[in-house]
Amino acid sequence: MSTSPLFSPRGQEAEIEEGTAFAPKFDADGLIPAVATDATTGEVLMFAWMNAEALEKTIRTGEAWYWSRSRNSLWRKGETSGQTQTVRDIRIDCDQDALLLKVDVGGDGGACHVGYRSCFYRSVPVGAADGPLTLHIEAEKLPGHKHS
Amino acid sequence: MSTSPLFSPRGQEAEIEEGTAFAPKFDADGLIPAVATDATTGEVLMFAWMNAEALEKTIRTGEAWYWSRSRNSLWRKGETSGQTQTVRDIRIDCDQDALLLKVDVGGDGGACHVGYRSCFYRSVPVGAADGPLTLHIEAEKLPGHKHS
Repeated sequence: MSTSPLFSPRGQEAEIEEGTAFAPKFDADGLIPAVATDATTGEVLMFAWMNAEALEKTIRTGEAWYWSRSRNSLWRKGETSGQTQTVRDIRIDCDQDALLLKVDVGGDGGACHVGYRSCFYRSVPVGAADGPLTLHIEAEKLPGHKHS
Repeated sequence: MSTSPLFSPRGQEAEIEEGTAFAPKFDADGLIPAVATDATTGEVLMFAWMNAEALEKTIRTGEAWYWSRSRNSLWRKGETSGQTQTVRDIRIDCDQDALLLKVDVGGDGGACHVGYRSCFYRSVPVGAADGPLTLHIEAEKLPGHKHS
C-alpha cells in the first residue's frame, strides 16, 4: 500500500498543486522519484526512488531511505558505504509526484557508488551531431575511489 | 522505439556506469526522468520526463523538450507560457537512467505552471509526527502570477 498515517488522500487538482495537505503520488509500482542535492552547495547528487515506507522513514528519522529497484529492497543510504544523507529539507513539487531532498552527506562526502561526489559526473554534448554521442567526464573521483 | 542515432546500445554495467558511450535507459513506457536546474543559481526548478524524441530534440536544438504523460504529447517547454529553457549543460547519471539539465529560463524566469519559480516550493516537515503532515509554502509567486 502506498500509504502512511503521514499522508493525506489525493484531493482536487487545485488542492494538490497549491494546498498544504501532503498527498504524495506513487506510481503503479508504488514508487515516487526523489532527487538529492547537497544542502550546502545545492549540487544535484543523485536520483533515486522511494516507496511509502522509505518516505515515511526518511521523514521520521531525518536520514535518507530509498527503495532499490535492482535489489527490490529498502535501503538506508550510506548503510554500507558510509555515505549517509542527513536530511535538512524535503520539498515536494506542484503535482506532488516528485521529491527533492537537501542533505548533508556523511563519509567521504560522495553519493555515487562508482566514486564521484555526484552521480551526474558526465555531460552529454549539446548541438548538431550525426552519430552516437561521446560523454565527457566533468569531475574527478573522490580520493578513496581514485584507483577503483 | 526508445532509440535515436545519437544513442549507443546499452553495454556491460562497467561501460554504462564509467564509460563514455551515451546509452540512456528508457523505462517500460519509453521514458527517462529529467531534472531541470537553473544554470546560474543551481536551484532545482522542475522534474519531468523525456522520451527518445524529446531527448534527441533537446540535444539537437539546445532547447528543452519533454514528454507530457498527462497530455500524452511532446512539448517544448515554454511554448505557451514563454518559460522556455535554453540548455547550457546536460548530465546523465552513473547508470544512465536519469538526466540533469542546467538551463537558462526565458519569460518571467519561472518553471512552475502554478506561478512559482520552482515547482518545489513547498516543504515537508521532517521529524516525529502522529497524523497527516501540513506542507509549508517556502516561496512567493512570481509577480505576473500573484493573483492567480
